Amino acid sequence: MKIYDDYLQIIKDAVESDASNQISKGLGYPAYNRTNEQFKAILNRIEDKEIASEMKMFSEGLGRPINYNQQLGLHPSFAHLKNTDNVEEHYIVSVFIDIKGSTNLFKKFDKETNFLITNAIIKAGIHTALIFGGYVHRLQGDGMFLYFGDENIEQKKAVELALQMISVYTHFVKNDLKEYLLSQGIENIGVRTGIDLGKKEDVLWGNSGIGEISEVTTCSLHTSLASKMQSSAVRNGVVVGQYVKDEILGDDFFSLVCHRSDKTENDRYIYRIDDRNFYYTQYDFNWEKYLKKQNFVATDFNGNPIIKLPSSISSISALKPIAAINKPYFNERKNKT
Amino acid sequence: MKIYDDYLQIIKDAVESDASNQISKGLGYPAYNRTNEQFKAILNRIEDKEIASEMKMFSEGLGRPINYNQQLGLHPSFAHLKNTDNVEEHYIVSVFIDIKGSTNLFKKFDKETNFLITNAIIKAGIHTALIFGGYVHRLQGDGMFLYFGDENIEQKKAVELALQMISVYTHFVKNDLKEYLLSQGIENIGVRTGIDLGKKEDVLWGNSGIGEISEVTTCSLHTSLASKMQSSAVRNGVVVGQYVKDEILGDDFFSLVCHRSDKTENDRYIYRIDDRNFYYTQYDFNWEKYLKKQNFVATDFNGNPIIKLPSSISSISALKPIAAINKPYFNERKNKT
Repeated sequence: MKIYDDYLQIIKDAVESDASNQISKGLGYPAYNRTNEQFKAILNRIEDKEIASEMKMFSEGLGRPINYNQQLGLHPSFAHLKNTDNVEEHYIVSVFIDIKGSTNLFKKFDKETNFLITNAIIKAGIHTALIFGGYVHRLQGDGMFLYFGDENIEQKKAVELALQMISVYTHFVKNDLKEYLLSQGIENIGVRTGIDLGKKEDVLWGNSGIGEISEVTTCSLHTSLASKMQSSAVRNGVVVGQYVKDEILGDDFFSLVCHRSDKTENDRYIYRIDDRNFYYTQYDFNWEKYLKKQNFVATDFNGNPIIKLPSSISSISALKPIAAINKPYFNERKNKT
Repeated sequence: MKIYDDYLQIIKDAVESDASNQISKGLGYPAYNRTNEQFKAILNRIEDKEIASEMKMFSEGLGRPINYNQQLGLHPSFAHLKNTDNVEEHYIVSVFIDIKGSTNLFKKFDKETNFLITNAIIKAGIHTALIFGGYVHRLQGDGMFLYFGDENIEQKKAVELALQMISVYTHFVKNDLKEYLLSQGIENIGVRTGIDLGKKEDVLWGNSGIGEISEVTTCSLHTSLASKMQSSAVRNGVVVGQYVKDEILGDDFFSLVCHRSDKTENDRYIYRIDDRNFYYTQYDFNWEKYLKKQNFVATDFNGNPIIKLPSSISSISALKPIAAINKPYFNERKNKT
């Protein structure tokens, strides 16, 4: 997808300047090491532009300018719980995303290259999450734990945004990223995701930990299950819980995990409490189908999804002033220091 | 272990005040809900004391007063890298700890009870990490990602501290915690840990992410492998990499993962790069044996390890002034607000 071109370019530059590639070019020279300046130039490409330009256009097209004023472990709607003994109930969509097979990168590239690649993947993920109104709760290496939902958004909408986000991002990893890395001899890179909705009565927000060794987080069966569902997902797959499915019209996008060829009826439920008659079903989410149904997506001649950028979406000019006000946080910070 | 008594007491109080237990007592009354005040009283028991008293004595006995002035995702030795484009090489011990089976708690208890239990487990883990000089990099539900090592400590010592910490904490979970929860009908609670050492040339420290959606973290094969080793551990087991083993005198504490009854020669290496002749071995760490060899541990009449508290450790009085100066961060914070 074109919106990820700048991130992919960072990865390409990182790979091309990796010592291993200098050798394999067989120039007869000793392996050349990327200079510190070259390293920083690659690393900073996105930051220098504030956000990759295509991604910015996408954001503006959706009418969702990026708000960088977030902080890990401190969801804005529940930040007042930080280091207090108060707790609150509020619904939340928990999304666990993990890039699988990324240790394979160390088989070929040096750690500086891997740092650049991981950072580009993470930034692409953060930007995608922010565009769809997500909140980045934790970074986990090249994975992420996101929340969707807050005081100002309806539960159903939060579920939709989470599914849109993961569809766009998974498409990037499964196609653009995988194809390029495969061309460099890196196999088996993929992304796995688990998503679940915890309803108000099932989610307790509170501070966990001590002092600044703490985060405002959710204690909820459905946050725990989202993490379990991630482990249950196939490569480039997304597994969701019953409550997620219930919020989406039609059955077209979901199939029972137990209907996979290698699964049995035992895998129908991700969780069961027999003596309470609680059986919670897990589904494979058909994100490819869902993606094509979104109004910000068109399909090209080959039937592949393409993102509609502002030039093809009407009435975006009115949104530009909002986007302009919304200055990325890291730039404010840079100016301060 | 006595040092965990206060944490365990929180868990007991949480369970005893859980609605499910009120019903099962069959008093003929409708289920009684813990009041908000009762909830807070249980939650705050440790904070009111600054740290559990037995744990504090243990800390003083070791001569390692607790330093609460840490912040997630910002290792003090590398905090200067935050939101810069600089990177640094420095050895690190990465420790991934995960409580397994904790979703089973939702089968019996309400979310408030589970919040109290999880918080007690996390606080016990944080305190144990801090006592052994560890740095808490991430909280992950009821799991944790710790680093051991900094500019002022030798690599070998950092490895020893990590192994001491995990031995003490795993003993708590496998014995005190498991036994109590089992008595309440909660089965299969356990802890799994992966630990690996990345040497200076294999570890790149740098800022990952954007703005405050970022952390100062390591890009290293051995951080990634520690996470993989966690998945490879048995219940209440600890798996470590070759470089960890290399730092510890004698072979007595390590056995090849491939020698487990359900494993084959294929499991000898956690990672291999055939064309570079790099084969990295994983070991089960016998933490029970290691624990008994530590000078802060004695054994009782039944051969079980017990922690020597200051009364049984000489020359600790000289350390008390240090501990007194070192005021827990959350109390400073409380005073401010």
